[in-house]
Amino acid sequence: MQQALDNPGLISLAAGFVDPESLPSAASHSAAASLLSQPLLARAALQYGSVRGDTPLRELLLQRLLAHDAADAAAPRAQHTPSLDQVILTAGSNQLLALLADALLDPGDAVVCDAPSYFVFTGLVESVGARCFGVAADADGMRVDALEQLLEAHAAAGTLQRIKAIYTVSYYDNPRGVSLARSRRAALVALAERYSHTHRIYVIEDAAYRELRFSGEDQASVCAYDTSGETVIYAGTFSKTFSPGLRVGYGVLPKSIAPAVSALKGNIDFGSPYLNQCVLAEALKLGLYEPHVEQLRALYAAKAACMLSALDEHVAPLGVCSYERPKGGLYVWLSLPANVETGPTSELYARAREAGVLYVAGEYCYPSGPERQKNALRLSFGVQSEERIQLGIQKLAAAMREVI
Amino acid sequence: MQQALDNPGLISLAAGFVDPESLPSAASHSAAASLLSQPLLARAALQYGSVRGDTPLRELLLQRLLAHDAADAAAPRAQHTPSLDQVILTAGSNQLLALLADALLDPGDAVVCDAPSYFVFTGLVESVGARCFGVAADADGMRVDALEQLLEAHAAAGTLQRIKAIYTVSYYDNPRGVSLARSRRAALVALAERYSHTHRIYVIEDAAYRELRFSGEDQASVCAYDTSGETVIYAGTFSKTFSPGLRVGYGVLPKSIAPAVSALKGNIDFGSPYLNQCVLAEALKLGLYEPHVEQLRALYAAKAACMLSALDEHVAPLGVCSYERPKGGLYVWLSLPANVETGPTSELYARAREAGVLYVAGEYCYPSGPERQKNALRLSFGVQSEERIQLGIQKLAAAMREVI
Repeated sequence: MQQALDNPGLISLAAGFVDPESLPSAASHSAAASLLSQPLLARAALQYGSVRGDTPLRELLLQRLLAHDAADAAAPRAQHTPSLDQVILTAGSNQLLALLADALLDPGDAVVCDAPSYFVFTGLVESVGARCFGVAADADGMRVDALEQLLEAHAAAGTLQRIKAIYTVSYYDNPRGVSLARSRRAALVALAERYSHTHRIYVIEDAAYRELRFSGEDQASVCAYDTSGETVIYAGTFSKTFSPGLRVGYGVLPKSIAPAVSALKGNIDFGSPYLNQCVLAEALKLGLYEPHVEQLRALYAAKAACMLSALDEHVAPLGVCSYERPKGGLYVWLSLPANVETGPTSELYARAREAGVLYVAGEYCYPSGPERQKNALRLSFGVQSEERIQLGIQKLAAAMREVI
Repeated sequence: MQQALDNPGLISLAAGFVDPESLPSAASHSAAASLLSQPLLARAALQYGSVRGDTPLRELLLQRLLAHDAADAAAPRAQHTPSLDQVILTAGSNQLLALLADALLDPGDAVVCDAPSYFVFTGLVESVGARCFGVAADADGMRVDALEQLLEAHAAAGTLQRIKAIYTVSYYDNPRGVSLARSRRAALVALAERYSHTHRIYVIEDAAYRELRFSGEDQASVCAYDTSGETVIYAGTFSKTFSPGLRVGYGVLPKSIAPAVSALKGNIDFGSPYLNQCVLAEALKLGLYEPHVEQLRALYAAKAACMLSALDEHVAPLGVCSYERPKGGLYVWLSLPANVETGPTSELYARAREAGVLYVAGEYCYPSGPERQKNALRLSFGVQSEERIQLGIQKLAAAMREVI
């Protein structure tokens, strides 16, 4: 990011930022004006809120989640409805992930995640002295057979008690753009439950990109398959679908962990800025949010198609690379031949940088350990215009041609 | 707080919230409208910002701090000007305190603070497995002679290396409403420097209430006495003087610690919500902030006078209590006879609660340990109207009369 800021001429396909032109300036203006022009509401919004956040907004988000999950006819029926105490608003979903790392993990503990996974989360885990075990993932997301093997191996070795959670980005994931298949959702929850012998192994479902599907119907969350409500922690955010500058995220947490996370948050910031929660609630109430997300879906679908067509034109002919075709989200994951490294000291990185294009080196996305692959890279079509996406891919392809 | 929320009839003199009627709804409306009606500025404000926060706002806050300190003719001249990299915007100053606890302290470490001190900070210290050593304070703030004794005792015992910081609320402190005297500011910095043999002992100056002086001139910060700029961490906030719902705080940190705090913040939230920073910057630019603070000063001066006169009328005649007369801030600290406990299971607490008034038990404000006093309480005149402040003190005095 610093390199992109320092060299505005560079085409950064690195940062997972959102499209700047599409940010909802008019909707935010309307929502803020509506809120702040009513003195009583305005004053309430400018005061401290509660640690868990605005009750009407939490109610709304919970109902929305339940409705989205229920709209998938194939999803199981939950045996319970979470109470509002289990819903917590945070400064983006990232703060929730940071709170979870603090609340769930002691030094020496571990989290299981996809290999590759969201590098900020694996960094948070490592920052509290815990580690990540990567599980192989394919076009259907985390491989549950590989997950079972890993859990079984730890059970056999007597180290299962150090594993506190399984983390996955369940829709259009970061960094690969793939979703966890329906059949694996139930299996993931069942595995977590089966190995929760002596302590609860939570599933942390990061649904940051859920609403950014390019077309078709939504599918039920992993959380929907946790019919007892004791296993899955659901993390959502409006940073990708509305505004990262507003930064409202939320979590729906099992009863066993919600009070600890809330207490931790209370210590740190007494609850996220209340004004932001009220502006988002107002945007939802005024019906400004859903049309905005519809626009974003079309926009990112077009930008993804643009990137894929540029890859088809310039990279596919090299005959040695492969990439997923995402159905939502912000990312394309590109795999190069095993002997072509992509890291910050690699020849490819240097040549791409020289040609004027930046990417995220794939190795950053793996937990430390032997499964770390050095021959992949993450491309984001979030920020750049279609024209610059095409140009960026052209430059990247030229760099790849030289190196390969 | 929960008790107050559950019983709206209660007069809560407990929470350190700000006066609800005075919250700047018109100023916030103008600032937000000005910002969000300009599409380019609006889009920038709705995007991610940098981890340290908006550069123009950081510049402004740094210049403001230097100007305020320089306005005090008796303050020393700094030998350096902090760079912008040393200024970090946070979600209130409390998030900065939480980041500092994380960045500076390992389990077993310690912080020196006033006894009594701000209970949320002592809680943060304890939550990372460190402890607080309390130093006696009087009407001039922390007693530097007692601080020196404590540091000397640790040096003699070989435990000085566990002490990582000295924390003080330097203006109209929480919970006692007193400021650290000018002569002690220089001495505090000198002591921290003198005992920084093997490692740096930082001074954390929490200046949350600085601008809430009732009258007269500002005095230079403790930070101003740190002429080398290597010892004092300055924490400021706009939560008390503008809006806690906006929640913009900031820190000015020595070069040796700023990068670690910034990295930690980057992991947690990538920087605080940018929109809030931009709204505050706009309010400052439009000249909406200073007149608001002027109004607040008059308002809180009147409310403090009201509380003190009610105490003079109803509590002083009991002949066994003492209280400070604050010159700023939000609090009055009341000391009762040594044998009258004020804690949550005490007779006084129960009777006050029954009479319909809440306070913060003084014992919460002491670090755990032998110096914890159980016969004091904190009263806040922030939230309640003058009428209810009078009524609250009357009820409290009646409860005290019964118990004493």
